[in-house]
Amino acid sequence: MSISDTLATLSITLPTPAAPAGAYIPVVTYNNCAYISGQLPIEGGKLKYTGKVGSEQSIENGQQSAKLCVINALAALNAELGSLDSVTRIIKLEVYVNSAAGFTDQAQVANGASNFLKEVFGDKGLHTRVALGAAELPLNAATEIVITAAYK
Amino acid sequence: MSISDTLATLSITLPTPAAPAGAYIPVVTYNNCAYISGQLPIEGGKLKYTGKVGSEQSIENGQQSAKLCVINALAALNAELGSLDSVTRIIKLEVYVNSAAGFTDQAQVANGASNFLKEVFGDKGLHTRVALGAAELPLNAATEIVITAAYK
Amino acid sequence: MSISDTLATLSITLPTPAAPAGAYIPVVTYNNCAYISGQLPIEGGKLKYTGKVGSEQSIENGQQSAKLCVINALAALNAELGSLDSVTRIIKLEVYVNSAAGFTDQAQVANGASNFLKEVFGDKGLHTRVALGAAELPLNAATEIVITAAYK
Repeated sequence: MSISDTLATLSITLPTPAAPAGAYIPVVTYNNCAYISGQLPIEGGKLKYTGKVGSEQSIENGQQSAKLCVINALAALNAELGSLDSVTRIIKLEVYVNSAAGFTDQAQVANGASNFLKEVFGDKGLHTRVALGAAELPLNAATEIVITAAYK
Repeated sequence: MSISDTLATLSITLPTPAAPAGAYIPVVTYNNCAYISGQLPIEGGKLKYTGKVGSEQSIENGQQSAKLCVINALAALNAELGSLDSVTRIIKLEVYVNSAAGFTDQAQVANGASNFLKEVFGDKGLHTRVALGAAELPLNAATEIVITAAYK
Repeated sequence: MSISDTLATLSITLPTPAAPAGAYIPVVTYNNCAYISGQLPIEGGKLKYTGKVGSEQSIENGQQSAKLCVINALAALNAELGSLDSVTRIIKLEVYVNSAAGFTDQAQVANGASNFLKEVFGDKGLHTRVALGAAELPLNAATEIVITAAYK
Protein backbone atom coordinates (compact mmCIF):
# COMPACT_ATOMS: atom_id res chain seq x y z
CA MET A 1 0.00 0.00 0.00
CA SER A 2 1.36 3.43 -0.90
CA ILE A 3 1.73 6.08 1.79
CA SER A 4 -0.94 8.18 0.09
CA ASP A 5 -3.32 5.21 0.28
CA THR A 6 -2.44 4.78 3.94
CA LEU A 7 -3.10 8.46 4.58
CA ALA A 8 -6.46 8.17 2.79
CA THR A 9 -7.34 5.18 4.98
CA LEU A 10 -6.53 7.31 8.02
CA SER A 11 -8.71 10.13 6.58
CA ILE A 12 -5.68 12.42 6.41
CA THR A 13 -5.39 14.96 3.61
CA LEU A 14 -1.99 16.61 3.40
CA PRO A 15 -2.42 20.39 3.31
CA THR A 16 -0.60 22.75 1.01
CA PRO A 17 2.62 23.46 2.93
CA ALA A 18 2.54 26.77 4.77
CA ALA A 19 5.08 29.37 3.68
CA PRO A 20 7.88 29.70 6.25
CA ALA A 21 7.51 32.68 8.60
CA GLY A 22 10.97 34.01 7.75
CA ALA A 23 14.05 33.75 5.56
CA TYR A 24 14.27 29.98 5.65
CA ILE A 25 12.81 27.05 3.73
CA PRO A 26 10.68 24.04 4.69
CA VAL A 27 13.11 21.25 3.75
CA VAL A 28 16.82 20.89 2.98
CA THR A 29 18.06 17.60 1.56
CA TYR A 30 21.64 16.42 1.94
CA ASN A 31 23.19 12.94 1.68
CA ASN A 32 19.73 11.42 1.16
CA CYS A 33 18.61 12.92 4.42
CA ALA A 34 15.72 15.39 4.56
CA TYR A 35 15.89 18.02 7.30
CA ILE A 36 12.44 19.53 7.90
CA SER A 37 11.93 22.91 9.58
CA GLY A 38 10.09 23.16 12.88
CA GLN A 39 6.35 22.66 12.37
CA LEU A 40 3.49 24.22 14.28
CA PRO A 41 -0.07 22.86 14.71
CA ILE A 42 -1.50 24.91 11.85
CA GLU A 43 -4.73 23.89 10.11
CA GLY A 44 -6.45 25.90 7.41
CA GLY A 45 -3.85 28.63 7.73
CA LYS A 46 -4.19 29.20 11.44
CA LEU A 47 -2.98 27.74 14.69
CA LYS A 48 -5.40 25.14 16.02
CA TYR A 49 -3.76 24.47 19.40
CA THR A 50 -2.27 27.28 21.46
CA GLY A 51 -1.24 27.75 25.05
CA LYS A 52 0.36 25.60 27.66
CA VAL A 53 -0.25 21.88 27.89
CA GLY A 54 -1.05 20.97 31.47
CA SER A 55 -3.13 24.09 32.09
CA GLU A 56 -4.68 25.60 28.93
CA GLN A 57 -4.58 22.37 26.94
CA SER A 58 -5.16 18.77 28.02
CA ILE A 59 -2.71 15.96 27.29
CA GLU A 60 -5.19 14.66 24.68
CA ASN A 61 -5.22 18.02 22.89
CA GLY A 62 -1.45 18.11 23.13
CA GLN A 63 -1.35 14.74 21.40
CA GLN A 64 -3.64 16.03 18.64
CA SER A 65 -1.44 19.10 18.35
CA ALA A 66 1.65 16.93 17.98
CA LYS A 67 -0.08 14.81 15.33
CA LEU A 68 -1.06 17.96 13.43
CA CYS A 69 2.56 19.16 13.49
CA VAL A 70 3.57 15.82 11.96
CA ILE A 71 0.92 16.17 9.23
CA ASN A 72 2.41 19.56 8.34
CA ALA A 73 5.91 18.08 8.33
CA LEU A 74 4.77 15.30 6.00
CA ALA A 75 3.11 17.87 3.71
CA ALA A 76 6.43 19.74 3.45
CA LEU A 77 8.33 16.50 2.88
CA ASN A 78 5.88 15.32 0.24
CA ALA A 79 6.18 18.62 -1.62
CA GLU A 80 9.98 18.30 -1.58
CA LEU A 81 10.29 14.63 -2.52
CA GLY A 82 7.26 14.34 -4.80
CA SER A 83 6.04 11.29 -2.91
CA LEU A 84 6.26 9.99 0.64
CA ASP A 85 6.91 6.53 -0.80
CA SER A 86 10.55 7.66 -1.19
CA VAL A 87 10.94 7.80 2.58
CA THR A 88 13.07 4.91 3.80
CA ARG A 89 13.20 5.85 7.46
CA ILE A 90 12.04 8.43 9.94
CA ILE A 91 15.34 9.04 11.74
CA LYS A 92 14.61 11.54 14.45
CA LEU A 93 11.61 13.23 16.03
CA GLU A 94 12.04 16.30 18.25
CA VAL A 95 8.95 17.25 20.24
CA TYR A 96 8.79 20.56 22.04
CA VAL A 97 5.79 20.92 24.35
CA ASN A 98 4.69 24.36 25.53
CA SER A 99 4.51 23.28 29.16
CA ALA A 100 2.69 24.65 32.16
CA ALA A 101 4.80 24.90 35.31
CA GLY A 102 5.03 21.43 36.81
CA PHE A 103 3.83 19.61 33.70
CA THR A 104 6.07 16.60 33.15
CA ASP A 105 4.08 14.36 30.77
CA GLN A 106 5.90 15.49 27.61
CA ALA A 107 6.43 11.83 26.65
CA GLN A 108 2.68 11.22 26.57
CA VAL A 109 2.17 14.28 24.38
CA ALA A 110 4.97 13.13 22.07
CA ASN A 111 3.27 9.75 21.67
CA GLY A 112 0.62 11.57 19.61
CA ALA A 113 3.34 12.16 17.03
CA SER A 114 5.17 8.83 17.44
CA ASN A 115 2.07 6.67 17.14
CA PHE A 116 0.96 8.53 14.03
CA LEU A 117 4.34 8.06 12.35
CA LYS A 118 4.10 4.34 13.05
CA GLU A 119 0.58 4.22 11.57
CA VAL A 120 1.70 5.99 8.40
CA PHE A 121 5.10 4.41 7.77
CA GLY A 122 4.99 1.09 9.66
CA ASP A 123 8.46 -0.09 10.66
CA LYS A 124 10.03 2.68 8.55
CA GLY A 125 8.35 5.07 10.97
CA LEU A 126 10.20 3.74 14.03
CA HIS A 127 12.32 6.70 15.09
CA THR A 128 14.53 8.06 17.83
CA ARG A 129 12.97 10.81 19.87
CA VAL A 130 13.56 13.62 22.27
CA ALA A 131 10.65 15.28 24.11
CA LEU A 132 11.15 18.48 26.07
CA GLY A 133 9.18 21.15 27.87
CA ALA A 134 9.62 24.57 26.25
CA ALA A 135 9.18 27.80 28.20
CA GLU A 136 7.52 29.47 25.23
CA LEU A 137 6.91 28.53 21.59
CA PRO A 138 6.47 30.70 18.49
CA LEU A 139 2.99 32.26 18.25
CA ASN A 140 2.11 30.47 21.50
CA ALA A 141 1.76 27.13 19.72
CA ALA A 142 1.01 24.19 22.03
CA THR A 143 3.67 22.04 20.36
CA GLU A 144 6.45 22.36 17.82
CA ILE A 145 7.99 19.39 16.01
CA VAL A 146 11.15 18.76 14.00
CA ILE A 147 11.56 15.65 11.84
CA THR A 148 14.63 14.29 10.07
CA ALA A 149 14.02 11.53 7.53
CA ALA A 150 16.06 9.35 5.18
CA TYR A 151 14.86 8.84 1.61
CA LYS A 152 16.02 7.07 -1.51
CA MET B 1 42.46 -0.72 25.66
CA SER B 2 38.89 -1.59 24.67
CA ILE B 3 36.04 0.68 25.69
CA SER B 4 34.64 -2.05 27.93
CA ASP B 5 38.04 -2.24 29.70
CA THR B 6 38.00 1.54 30.07
CA LEU B 7 34.50 1.43 31.52
CA ALA B 8 35.61 -1.29 33.96
CA THR B 9 38.54 0.88 35.02
CA LEU B 10 36.07 3.71 35.67
CA SER B 11 33.87 1.27 37.67
CA ILE B 12 31.03 1.76 35.20
CA THR B 13 28.70 -1.12 34.41
CA LEU B 14 26.41 -0.46 31.46
CA PRO B 15 22.82 -1.20 32.46
CA THR B 16 20.30 -3.10 30.38
CA PRO B 17 18.83 -0.37 28.18
CA ALA B 18 15.47 0.87 29.41
CA ALA B 19 12.50 0.32 27.14
CA PRO B 20 11.42 3.58 25.49
CA ALA B 21 8.41 5.25 27.13
CA GLY B 22 6.47 5.39 23.86
CA ALA B 23 6.26 4.33 20.22
CA TYR B 24 9.89 5.03 19.42
CA ILE B 25 13.17 3.15 19.60
CA PRO B 26 16.48 3.79 21.41
CA VAL B 27 18.78 4.08 18.37
CA VAL B 28 18.44 4.58 14.62
CA THR B 29 21.51 4.13 12.44
CA TYR B 30 21.89 5.80 9.07
CA ASN B 31 24.98 6.53 6.95
CA ASN B 32 27.22 5.13 9.73
CA CYS B 33 25.74 7.63 12.13
CA ALA B 34 23.90 6.50 15.26
CA TYR B 35 21.09 8.73 16.48
CA ILE B 36 20.29 7.99 20.12
CA SER B 37 16.97 8.93 21.73
CA GLY B 38 16.84 11.40 24.61
CA GLN B 39 18.13 9.77 27.80
CA LEU B 40 17.05 10.43 31.37
CA PRO B 41 19.07 9.90 34.58
CA ILE B 42 17.57 6.47 35.27
CA GLU B 43 19.36 3.94 37.49
CA GLY B 44 17.96 0.56 38.49
CA GLY B 45 14.73 1.32 36.65
CA LYS B 46 13.97 4.62 38.33
CA LEU B 47 14.91 8.25 38.07
CA LYS B 48 17.84 9.07 40.33
CA TYR B 49 17.90 12.86 39.87
CA THR B 50 14.70 14.87 39.64
CA GLY B 51 13.75 18.52 40.02
CA LYS B 52 15.34 21.77 39.06
CA VAL B 53 19.08 22.29 39.10
CA GLY B 54 19.86 25.51 40.92
CA SER B 55 17.19 24.99 43.56
CA GLU B 56 16.26 21.33 44.17
CA GLN B 57 19.55 19.93 42.85
CA SER B 58 23.11 21.26 43.16
CA ILE B 59 25.41 21.77 40.19
CA GLU B 60 27.37 18.71 41.36
CA ASN B 61 24.24 16.56 41.34
CA GLY B 62 23.36 17.98 37.95
CA GLN B 63 26.76 16.86 36.69
CA GLN B 64 26.17 13.36 38.09
CA SER B 65 22.74 13.37 36.46
CA ALA B 66 24.28 14.33 33.11
CA LYS B 67 26.87 11.57 33.46
CA LEU B 68 24.14 9.03 34.24
CA CYS B 69 22.24 10.10 31.11
CA VAL B 70 25.41 9.44 29.10
CA ILE B 71 25.81 6.01 30.68
CA ASN B 72 22.27 5.17 29.56
CA ALA B 73 22.98 6.49 26.06
CA LEU B 74 26.10 4.33 25.87
CA ALA B 75 24.12 1.30 27.04
CA ALA B 76 21.64 1.88 24.19
CA LEU B 77 24.44 2.39 21.70
CA ASN B 78 26.30 -0.71 22.88
CA ALA B 79 23.14 -2.81 22.50
CA GLU B 80 22.68 -1.52 18.95
CA LEU B 81 26.27 -1.79 17.73
CA GLY B 82 27.33 -4.86 19.71
CA SER B 83 30.42 -3.04 20.97
CA LEU B 84 31.38 0.52 21.76
CA ASP B 85 34.74 -0.14 20.08
CA SER B 86 32.92 0.51 16.79
CA VAL B 87 32.43 4.16 17.73
CA THR B 88 34.74 6.37 15.70
CA ARG B 89 33.53 9.72 16.99
CA ILE B 90 31.04 11.31 19.34
CA ILE B 91 29.65 13.96 17.01
CA LYS B 92 27.14 15.93 19.02
CA LEU B 93 25.99 16.20 22.62
CA GLU B 94 22.75 18.00 23.50
CA VAL B 95 22.31 18.72 27.20
CA TYR B 96 18.96 19.91 28.52
CA VAL B 97 19.04 21.05 32.12
CA ASN B 98 15.82 21.34 34.13
CA SER B 99 16.64 24.82 35.35
CA ALA B 100 15.45 26.85 38.30
CA ALA B 101 14.54 30.46 37.47
CA GLY B 102 17.77 32.41 37.19
CA PHE B 103 20.03 29.35 36.94
CA THR B 104 22.56 29.98 34.16
CA ASP B 105 25.33 27.43 34.82
CA GLN B 106 24.08 24.90 32.26
CA ALA B 107 27.62 24.68 30.82
CA GLN B 108 28.98 23.47 34.16
CA VAL B 109 26.27 20.84 34.38
CA ALA B 110 26.99 19.74 30.82
CA ASN B 111 30.66 19.29 31.69
CA GLY B 112 29.58 16.26 33.74
CA ALA B 113 28.66 14.63 30.42
CA SER B 114 31.49 16.06 28.33
CA ASN B 115 34.25 15.08 30.74
CA PHE B 116 32.89 11.56 31.01
CA LEU B 117 32.78 11.13 27.22
CA LYS B 118 36.41 12.24 27.07
CA GLU B 119 37.35 9.74 29.81
CA VAL B 120 35.64 6.89 27.98
CA PHE B 121 36.54 7.59 24.36
CA GLY B 122 39.65 9.78 24.55
CA ASP B 123 40.04 12.00 21.49
CA LYS B 124 37.18 10.15 19.77
CA GLY B 125 35.01 11.54 22.55
CA LEU B 126 35.69 15.20 21.67
CA HIS B 127 32.30 16.45 20.54
CA THR B 128 30.31 19.54 19.69
CA ARG B 129 27.80 20.58 22.27
CA VAL B 130 24.75 22.63 23.03
CA ALA B 131 23.58 23.18 26.61
CA LEU B 132 20.21 24.74 27.36
CA GLY B 133 17.87 25.41 30.23
CA ALA B 134 14.56 23.57 29.84
CA ALA B 135 11.36 24.80 31.46
CA GLU B 136 10.29 21.25 32.26
CA LEU B 137 11.60 17.79 31.43
CA PRO B 138 9.80 14.44 31.13
CA LEU B 139 9.01 12.88 34.51
CA ASN B 140 10.69 15.90 36.14
CA ALA B 141 14.16 14.57 35.30
CA ALA B 142 17.00 16.91 36.30
CA THR B 143 18.69 16.48 32.92
CA GLU B 144 18.01 14.95 29.51
CA ILE B 145 20.72 14.17 26.99
CA VAL B 146 20.85 13.39 23.27
CA ILE B 147 23.96 11.94 21.64
CA THR B 148 24.80 11.46 17.96
CA ALA B 149 27.79 9.26 17.20
CA ALA B 150 29.68 8.02 14.16
CA TYR B 151 30.68 4.36 13.95
CA LYS B 152 32.41 2.05 11.52
CA MET C 1 32.63 37.09 -4.95
CA SER C 2 34.28 35.16 -2.14
CA ILE C 3 32.58 34.87 1.23
CA SER C 4 35.37 36.90 2.82
CA ASP C 5 34.71 39.67 0.28
CA THR C 6 31.00 39.49 1.06
CA LEU C 7 31.73 39.72 4.79
CA ALA C 8 33.98 42.74 4.14
CA THR C 9 31.16 44.39 2.15
CA LEU C 10 28.88 43.79 5.14
CA SER C 11 31.54 45.30 7.46
CA ILE C 12 31.84 41.99 9.32
CA THR C 13 35.19 40.91 10.73
CA LEU C 14 35.22 37.32 11.94
CA PRO C 15 36.60 37.20 15.48
CA THR C 16 39.12 34.71 16.80
CA PRO C 17 36.92 31.79 17.85
CA ALA C 18 36.29 31.71 21.59
CA ALA C 19 37.59 28.70 23.46
CA PRO C 20 34.74 26.35 24.44
CA ALA C 21 33.61 26.69 28.06
CA GLY C 22 34.10 22.99 28.76
CA ALA C 23 35.45 19.65 27.54
CA TYR C 24 34.12 19.98 24.01
CA ILE C 25 35.24 21.46 20.72
CA PRO C 26 33.82 24.12 18.39
CA VAL C 27 33.30 21.98 15.27
CA VAL C 28 33.15 18.28 14.38
CA THR C 29 33.13 17.27 10.73
CA TYR C 30 31.68 14.01 9.48
CA ASN C 31 30.50 12.93 6.02
CA ASN C 32 31.19 16.44 4.67
CA CYS C 33 28.89 17.87 7.28
CA ALA C 34 30.15 20.37 9.86
CA TYR C 35 28.43 20.30 13.24
CA ILE C 36 29.05 23.55 15.12
CA SER C 37 28.68 23.87 18.90
CA GLY C 38 26.08 26.19 20.40
CA GLN C 39 27.17 29.81 20.04
CA LEU C 40 26.49 32.70 22.39
CA PRO C 41 26.37 36.45 21.52
CA ILE C 42 29.96 37.08 22.57
CA GLU C 43 31.91 40.08 21.26
CA GLY C 44 35.40 41.05 22.34
CA GLY C 45 35.46 38.18 24.82
CA LYS C 46 32.28 39.05 26.64
CA LEU C 47 28.54 38.60 26.30
CA LYS C 48 26.98 41.54 24.50
CA TYR C 49 23.29 40.60 24.90
CA THR C 50 22.00 39.09 28.13
CA GLY C 51 18.63 38.63 29.73
CA LYS C 52 15.18 37.79 28.48
CA VAL C 53 13.91 38.95 25.11
CA GLY C 54 10.47 40.46 25.55
CA SER C 55 11.31 42.15 28.85
CA GLU C 56 15.04 42.92 29.30
CA GLN C 57 15.83 42.95 25.58
CA SER C 58 13.79 44.20 22.62
CA ILE C 59 13.07 42.08 19.56
CA GLU C 60 15.56 44.24 17.63
CA ASN C 61 18.29 43.52 20.16
CA GLY C 62 17.34 39.85 20.05
CA GLN C 63 17.84 39.92 16.29
CA GLN C 64 21.26 41.53 16.73
CA SER C 65 22.08 38.91 19.35
CA ALA C 66 21.09 36.14 16.94
CA LYS C 67 23.22 37.67 14.19
CA LEU C 68 26.18 37.88 16.56
CA CYS C 69 25.77 34.19 17.44
CA VAL C 70 25.92 33.40 13.71
CA ILE C 71 29.08 35.50 13.30
CA ASN C 72 30.69 33.43 16.05
CA ALA C 73 29.52 30.21 14.40
CA LEU C 74 31.02 31.32 11.09
CA ALA C 75 34.29 32.20 12.84
CA ALA C 76 34.45 28.67 14.25
CA LEU C 77 33.56 27.15 10.88
CA ASN C 78 36.12 29.29 9.05
CA ALA C 79 38.83 28.21 11.51
CA GLU C 80 37.93 24.56 10.91
CA LEU C 81 37.56 24.60 7.13
CA GLY C 82 40.20 27.22 6.31
CA SER C 83 37.71 29.16 4.20
CA LEU C 84 33.97 29.70 4.17
CA ASP C 85 34.05 29.31 0.39
CA SER C 86 34.04 25.54 1.03
CA VAL C 87 30.50 25.76 2.43
CA THR C 88 28.02 24.28 -0.02
CA ARG C 89 24.91 24.63 2.11
CA ILE C 90 23.67 25.83 5.46
CA ILE C 91 21.55 22.84 6.39
CA LYS C 92 20.00 23.63 9.73
CA LEU C 93 19.68 26.59 12.07
CA GLU C 94 18.52 26.12 15.66
CA VAL C 95 17.62 29.34 17.46
CA TYR C 96 17.04 29.33 21.21
CA VAL C 97 15.65 32.58 22.55
CA ASN C 98 15.88 33.39 26.27
CA SER C 99 12.22 34.32 26.51
CA ALA C 100 10.25 36.40 28.95
CA ALA C 101 6.98 34.84 30.11
CA GLY C 102 4.43 35.33 27.35
CA PHE C 103 6.98 36.26 24.66
CA THR C 104 6.06 34.39 21.49
CA ASP C 105 7.94 36.25 18.72
CA GLN C 106 10.86 33.79 18.58
CA ALA C 107 10.47 33.61 14.77
CA GLN C 108 11.12 37.35 14.45
CA VAL C 109 14.22 37.06 16.61
CA ALA C 110 15.42 34.10 14.53
CA ASN C 111 15.05 36.16 11.36
CA GLY C 112 18.07 38.15 12.55
CA ALA C 113 20.10 34.99 12.01
CA SER C 114 18.28 33.73 8.91
CA ASN C 115 18.49 37.01 7.01
CA PHE C 116 22.19 37.31 7.78
CA LEU C 117 22.91 33.80 6.51
CA LYS C 118 21.11 34.66 3.28
CA GLU C 119 23.16 37.88 2.93
CA VAL C 120 26.43 36.01 3.41
CA PHE C 121 25.82 32.81 1.46
CA GLY C 122 23.02 33.68 -0.99
CA ASP C 123 21.00 30.62 -2.01
CA LYS C 124 23.53 28.36 -0.26
CA GLY C 125 22.40 30.08 2.93
CA LEU C 126 18.77 28.96 2.60
CA HIS C 127 18.33 26.65 5.57
CA THR C 128 15.77 24.77 7.62
CA ARG C 129 15.08 26.24 11.01
CA VAL C 130 13.64 25.68 14.42
CA ALA C 131 13.05 28.58 16.82
CA LEU C 132 12.18 27.98 20.45
CA GLY C 133 11.78 29.83 23.72
CA ALA C 134 14.27 28.65 26.33
CA ALA C 135 13.59 28.97 30.05
CA GLU C 136 17.22 29.86 30.74
CA LEU C 137 20.39 29.98 28.66
CA PRO C 138 24.06 29.59 29.67
CA LEU C 139 25.49 32.73 31.30
CA ASN C 140 22.08 34.38 30.81
CA ALA C 141 22.74 34.90 27.09
CA ALA C 142 19.79 36.42 25.19
CA THR C 143 20.13 33.85 22.40
CA GLU C 144 22.01 30.65 21.61
CA ILE C 145 22.42 29.27 18.10
CA VAL C 146 23.43 25.94 16.58
CA ILE C 147 24.34 25.61 12.90
CA THR C 148 24.90 22.51 10.78
CA ALA C 149 26.50 23.06 7.38
CA ALA C 150 27.56 20.99 4.38
CA TYR C 151 30.95 21.63 2.78
CA LYS C 152 33.01 20.23 -0.04
